[in-house]
Amino acid sequence: MSELFEKLKPHLEQQFALGNALTLYGWDNETLAPKEAMENTAKIIGTLSALSYQALVNDEVRGLLSALKEPKEFDALSNVEQCIVKKLTKNFDRLEKIPADEYRAYSELTAKAAPAWANAKQNNDFASFAPVLKEIVTYQKKFAGYTKNAGMSLYDAMLDENEEGILTKELDVFFEKIKEAVLPLLKKVVAQNDKVDKNYNFRSYPVEKQREFCRFLAEYIGFDFNRGVMAESAHPFTTNLHNHDVRITNHFHEDNLESAMFSVIHEGGHALYEMGVDDALTLTPVGGGTSMGVHESQSRFYENVLGRSEAFWKPLFEKLQSTYPDALSDVDLTQFIRGINKAEPGPVRTEADELTYPLHIIIRYEIEKMLMEDMVSVEELPRVWNEKYEEYLGIIPKNDTEGVLQDVHWSGGMFGYFPSYAIGNAVAAQIYAYMHNEVNVKECLESGKLMPIREYLREHIHCFGSTKNMNELLVAMTGEPLNADYYTKYLTEKYTKLYLSE
Amino acid sequence: MSELFEKLKPHLEQQFALGNALTLYGWDNETLAPKEAMENTAKIIGTLSALSYQALVNDEVRGLLSALKEPKEFDALSNVEQCIVKKLTKNFDRLEKIPADEYRAYSELTAKAAPAWANAKQNNDFASFAPVLKEIVTYQKKFAGYTKNAGMSLYDAMLDENEEGILTKELDVFFEKIKEAVLPLLKKVVAQNDKVDKNYNFRSYPVEKQREFCRFLAEYIGFDFNRGVMAESAHPFTTNLHNHDVRITNHFHEDNLESAMFSVIHEGGHALYEMGVDDALTLTPVGGGTSMGVHESQSRFYENVLGRSEAFWKPLFEKLQSTYPDALSDVDLTQFIRGINKAEPGPVRTEADELTYPLHIIIRYEIEKMLMEDMVSVEELPRVWNEKYEEYLGIIPKNDTEGVLQDVHWSGGMFGYFPSYAIGNAVAAQIYAYMHNEVNVKECLESGKLMPIREYLREHIHCFGSTKNMNELLVAMTGEPLNADYYTKYLTEKYTKLYLSE
Repeated sequence: MSELFEKLKPHLEQQFALGNALTLYGWDNETLAPKEAMENTAKIIGTLSALSYQALVNDEVRGLLSALKEPKEFDALSNVEQCIVKKLTKNFDRLEKIPADEYRAYSELTAKAAPAWANAKQNNDFASFAPVLKEIVTYQKKFAGYTKNAGMSLYDAMLDENEEGILTKELDVFFEKIKEAVLPLLKKVVAQNDKVDKNYNFRSYPVEKQREFCRFLAEYIGFDFNRGVMAESAHPFTTNLHNHDVRITNHFHEDNLESAMFSVIHEGGHALYEMGVDDALTLTPVGGGTSMGVHESQSRFYENVLGRSEAFWKPLFEKLQSTYPDALSDVDLTQFIRGINKAEPGPVRTEADELTYPLHIIIRYEIEKMLMEDMVSVEELPRVWNEKYEEYLGIIPKNDTEGVLQDVHWSGGMFGYFPSYAIGNAVAAQIYAYMHNEVNVKECLESGKLMPIREYLREHIHCFGSTKNMNELLVAMTGEPLNADYYTKYLTEKYTKLYLSE
Repeated sequence: MSELFEKLKPHLEQQFALGNALTLYGWDNETLAPKEAMENTAKIIGTLSALSYQALVNDEVRGLLSALKEPKEFDALSNVEQCIVKKLTKNFDRLEKIPADEYRAYSELTAKAAPAWANAKQNNDFASFAPVLKEIVTYQKKFAGYTKNAGMSLYDAMLDENEEGILTKELDVFFEKIKEAVLPLLKKVVAQNDKVDKNYNFRSYPVEKQREFCRFLAEYIGFDFNRGVMAESAHPFTTNLHNHDVRITNHFHEDNLESAMFSVIHEGGHALYEMGVDDALTLTPVGGGTSMGVHESQSRFYENVLGRSEAFWKPLFEKLQSTYPDALSDVDLTQFIRGINKAEPGPVRTEADELTYPLHIIIRYEIEKMLMEDMVSVEELPRVWNEKYEEYLGIIPKNDTEGVLQDVHWSGGMFGYFPSYAIGNAVAAQIYAYMHNEVNVKECLESGKLMPIREYLREHIHCFGSTKNMNELLVAMTGEPLNADYYTKYLTEKYTKLYLSE
């Protein structure tokens, strides 16, 4: 047992507890807090953020980390302790460069920005949100300037925070590959679209029944309600206090069958990841999912790879039909599977199908790069947004609510996050390609027994928390780092089979 | 502007933010957190409690407080600043005497005790809860031993924390007066009980309709949903993050009309208090209600004095009837008013009527005194409990679930709290006796316009937060400190009119 590491422990506990409290406020603000609470609550969040900053960036922690990095000390640590020291050092080095008062002011700003964005979106009023967004962008650029390594662009620094080591250079190539595969495929698919009748999806699906069915789906994929809760919020999301308290939200629309159903499978995938972290890691800095990309791989694996497959619905379709007899009696499984995979350009990312989805991400990636390189101003965003949508998807959003204001991310300062969604898709496809060697996925799905799938992911990904990064996990599972080919191949095969094989 | 006080401000902010986070965890645990979260979450709460302790008890705060208490400095402070310094000094002096590690261990213990109690109550298993309760009692006695002033008993110290200056000596007299008035009155009233038919209360009242009606009631008395939320929990309670975020819970039973309805009026009364605190005080140590007794006076004023009066229901009864046409069509206002005021000894405090209620409190008061004076052990509590119920109410609880395990308080270490309920009743009666001089309460109620009542209470009580204590508020409003005579007179007149005047 390292004496130095023992001395670090109370600091780790404080950092964790303060970060945890901030997570709880975040959850509460999204799911419950009353409308007029935010002005006061933002001050509290500001103070807690400042305390959280101080709990990490102080001379004692600095001294302990620097002593623990000495080879003699470091080598004597357990593997988990080494991971903790590495992760803490990274956070310390990054945060130390950001002045405490700026960090605090920024935390208060983003706490208030969420309702400002929600308001702007509701009222289709980008102008009211622009000044807040401008401030956020300014802070983000300033922070990236403080923290970026030599040779990195500002946007690189933001990307690196979300997915260690995956920077603009790699992503440009990654997205180019995807564009090359998806754009022509989409064209062919759309030409066949009159073959798919999806009108059933927009009939009446009573919200109370949706709630019940979604709860069933969560349990079906392995969500443990003794260690998790499900609530409602404007936009579905997942958060967790620790591996025994994982929370997902959903949003119900009476006139849309799919929306909540695939949201719960998606968020459920995130949740299984956090629930599967080893008990020995929870409450430590490495006790959560390793990166946004790997997180999204889990949610998208469940939502798309499993959840939109015929095998998944074979044992469930009858139950679905009997839950909504009025709406689904004239729909059969084949039509339903085509319906939930219908590819069609639309303005809204969260409602997009698997094929157009990466284009929504590419648009955001390109805009974020431009924004960070001062090639576009905040005021110009609505115009640039609409131009990109016309270019890639052939449509122009009818207003900013369904255009540039659609996503919450920027109001939370989450720049460099969107690529994680596409990375997640690619990781999911890569895992799927190799998983067959150990688990008969199709048989699991068709027999309604999904636990072997969860256990496989738990054993190879979830349990490690963030003691391994994305490429370490991938190499161990698949023998190679991230490779977009699996993703383009998956999409091509899937959509060829669904649409183009007859 | 005092330079010293400016230096105190960041400390105040930190103390407030950490206390606030603990409040949020408390809320979350009661309303939402999953079953198996507590073991991990208790550790987080322990760490935050320790931080909260350190934020108050440290050399810098000690130095600032001692400098600020110098007359030259103190006199230069504003009134609110003086109140803050006084309150902080009191907290500091108290907390300083409790060793930090004991404070932390105790916080973790009570976080875990809540589910242990809930479990024991559910399974009628006092034995499983006894060891936890024993530990809590030991800590409470130890802490009271550390903090009590010379001449105080251990229980005095606990009482003083809940209601400044109201100790065993005063309470013995107070409760004696109540016993003298209530016991004979109850006897007479019970003899008339066959005149009251309350069977309607236990018909079927659909929970969804109850939720709606309770929401209506909350708004009716002045609860502002832009600054508050309503949720559900095993036992109704009120909490708040600040004056713009006040939260009440409720619990619905399909076979009981009254339970949720009077809970929402009760918790609503608490909530109006916190919502009414002046904006200049919120987020400071004096930004909440001044004491448990005054808090209970507000909840009980709304629940009993207003909510169980005929004038309150005159404009509402038709709406109530049409909400539950099946259950209430054969009930008229007169029967309903008698029903909601039916006095009948029962085993459960929270279901008790106004007349038997103080006897439930007296039982707890006497048992707590015995417990703290080592005249009864934790193991003996079930027996002593049942004996007291037989003595005062003539009934023996049929098991510990409806006996000694019924209340959550002891699992949270809340000893010395129960008397506040009776004090609250007495304060409510005293306020009511004088309020008529300024507000025509009956007219307000009968015309369904309750805002003048809320405004009166806001102006004379709520707005002050805890810058004035109970007796200061009472003297300013009524010209005298707490006087139990108003309460016994109120009960006697009310029950004589309802039951004995024909």
